[in-house]
Amino acid sequence: MKLRDLGERAILDYLIPRLSRAGGYLGPGDDGIDYLPRGRIVVTGDMLVESTDVPAGAPLESVGWKALTASMSDLAAKGARPLLAYVEMGLPPEMDFEGLEAIWRGIERARERYSVLVVGGDTNASRELVLGVFALGEAGRPVPRGGSRPGDLIGVTGPFGRAAAGLHSVLTGDTDPTWEPLRKSFLWPEARVEAGLVSSKYATGMIDSSDGLAKSLYDMSRLSGLGYVIEVLPLDDDVKRYAVSHGLDPERLVLGGGEEYELIITFDPENEGALREELQSVGCRLQVIGRVIDRRGVWLLRNGELIEVPELGWFHFGA
Amino acid sequence: MKLRDLGERAILDYLIPRLSRAGGYLGPGDDGIDYLPRGRIVVTGDMLVESTDVPAGAPLESVGWKALTASMSDLAAKGARPLLAYVEMGLPPEMDFEGLEAIWRGIERARERYSVLVVGGDTNASRELVLGVFALGEAGRPVPRGGSRPGDLIGVTGPFGRAAAGLHSVLTGDTDPTWEPLRKSFLWPEARVEAGLVSSKYATGMIDSSDGLAKSLYDMSRLSGLGYVIEVLPLDDDVKRYAVSHGLDPERLVLGGGEEYELIITFDPENEGALREELQSVGCRLQVIGRVIDRRGVWLLRNGELIEVPELGWFHFGA
Repeated sequence: MKLRDLGERAILDYLIPRLSRAGGYLGPGDDGIDYLPRGRIVVTGDMLVESTDVPAGAPLESVGWKALTASMSDLAAKGARPLLAYVEMGLPPEMDFEGLEAIWRGIERARERYSVLVVGGDTNASRELVLGVFALGEAGRPVPRGGSRPGDLIGVTGPFGRAAAGLHSVLTGDTDPTWEPLRKSFLWPEARVEAGLVSSKYATGMIDSSDGLAKSLYDMSRLSGLGYVIEVLPLDDDVKRYAVSHGLDPERLVLGGGEEYELIITFDPENEGALREELQSVGCRLQVIGRVIDRRGVWLLRNGELIEVPELGWFHFGA
Repeated sequence: MKLRDLGERAILDYLIPRLSRAGGYLGPGDDGIDYLPRGRIVVTGDMLVESTDVPAGAPLESVGWKALTASMSDLAAKGARPLLAYVEMGLPPEMDFEGLEAIWRGIERARERYSVLVVGGDTNASRELVLGVFALGEAGRPVPRGGSRPGDLIGVTGPFGRAAAGLHSVLTGDTDPTWEPLRKSFLWPEARVEAGLVSSKYATGMIDSSDGLAKSLYDMSRLSGLGYVIEVLPLDDDVKRYAVSHGLDPERLVLGGGEEYELIITFDPENEGALREELQSVGCRLQVIGRVIDRRGVWLLRNGELIEVPELGWFHFGA
C-alpha cells in the first residue's frame, strides 16, 4: 500500500499513538507538547535529506536511526542529557507503508538507545524523503565548540574513517563479511551520549565529528581562533586494511570521512587522567591525538613539520 | 550566483551572523544553543515543502514568512509566548543566492513581528525547497485541543475562507487589485500570538485553523470526544464577493479552506464578555460561531437541522 493511497489521516493514526508522552497538559496529536524543564536546556536540530544523505542500498530502518542519532550526537557534543525529540517528515507519496514502518522502527530503536522521548512531529508529502529532527537536552554547563585554550590536549572517543570506509563498501555493493563491521559503523552509528555527559566536567571545547575530523577541527578553530595540531591519526586496523585492499588513502578516510559520531574533546593536560577514567567508566577509551596551539588553523605534525590540513577534507563521496 | 557555486561554507557565513543570540554558553555556529527557561515550555514544529505548500507565483520572501508564522500559530493556539525558533533548510543547489536572501528576509520580518529569537539551523542540499521550523514558547497553563466541555461556546478570532480565496486568486494568476487583500491573506498570514495569549485565561480548548475550519474542529472533536456545531459561518464580504464573481461556493471556502491562522476557541458562556474584552484589547474581534454538544462530530446547523460536515472539507486545491 502506497502512502498516497493510505492518506494523511491513516498515517497520523499510525504515528500519533506511537509518540511518547511528555506528561504535561498537551498530549500526542495536539499542536505541540509542553514540558517543565528543571534547568538549562540545549536545543539542536539536524535535517536528513534522501538525495544527499542516503546512499542506494541503505535500509530505511537505519535512515530513521541515523536521523535521531545525528541530533543525539549534537546534544552529546554539548554534554547534554537527551530529553525529547520532535520529528518532521517529508514523505514521498509513492513510498510503501512498509517504508514508513521501517523508518519508524529505526526511530524507536534510537529512542530506546538514547532514552529520549519522541513527543511529536509533522508529516508532509514531498518529492524525496526528508527527516527533520529537533532535540532538547539538559546540561548544567553546555560545552561550546570554541572554548579550547592554547596548550590543551585534543582527545577523541574512538577511531576515525570507519564510516567513510563503510559508506564506500555500501556504495560499491560489497557484501564481503570482512567489512560488515565497517558497513555497520556507517549504517548504525552511535551517538556518544554518555561520553559527552562525563566529559563535560573537563572539556574546554567539544564537538562531534559528523562532518569529519578535519572539518570539525576547523569548526572549533573558527570559534576559538586557535590552532589544532594532529600528532597521531586516530586510525584503526579495520580502516587500514580496508584502505590497503581497496587502494584508498587511509589518511584521507580519517581526515575527510564524515558521518561519524565520535567526540572531539579539548582539555587541560592536568585533567587527562581524570577524563580518561570518566570515559572508561562509560566504556569509552580516550585517545589523545594532538594539542591546541596559539596559531589559527588545523595542522598535521609529520616528521616534525606542521602541514596545513585542507578544510573540506579530501574524500567526498558523491559531491 | 547559484547556491551550488557558492558552496556550503559561504551559505553558512551568510546565515550564521544573522542568527539571534540566546545569551547562553553556546553562540551561533555551535552544535546547538542553550537557554534557561523560566517555566513550562511549549515545543512545536512545522515543515513547509515547496511542491505541496508553495504555489507558483508565491514570492520566496512570503515562503520564509509563512514557515515561521506556521510555528508561531501553533504556539499561539496553546496560549504560549514565542521564545525561540530553529530553522532547518533543504535548499536546491540550483537556487539563486537572491532566493536564499529573500527567504531569509521573510524569516527576519516574521522574527520581528513575533519577537522570537531565530537561534540556529541546519542547511542541506535537497531536490526541492524544504523549511523545517521548530519553535519553543512559554506558557503557564497551555491550552489543549481537546479540553472543551459540553455547553461551551465556539469562538473565532476572524473570518474564514480568505486564504483559500487568495490562493485561488494566486493560482489563476489574477492581478485584479480588488482581490489583493485576499491574496495578501494567503501570502502574508499573521499568527494570532497576542490573541492566543489573552485567550488562554478563558479557553477550555484552542486550536489554530491551519488545516481549515472543518478539519480543525474534527481535530478538537477527536481529542475531546464531543461535538462542534457551527451555527453561524464566519464569512466576510470579501470572500462572499470573490465566491460570487468566480462561481465558487462560499460555504466550501469557509469550511474547507485551510492555510488560515485564526484561532478557534471554546469557552464557558459565562466568560464570553471577559474573553471579548481581552481580545478587543489586542485588536481582535471575537465572533461566536456555535457551541459544543455531547455528541461526537462536526455539524452545521441549518434551518434547525444538524447537518454533518465532511471531515476533509470540500475545497482542496491541487490535491
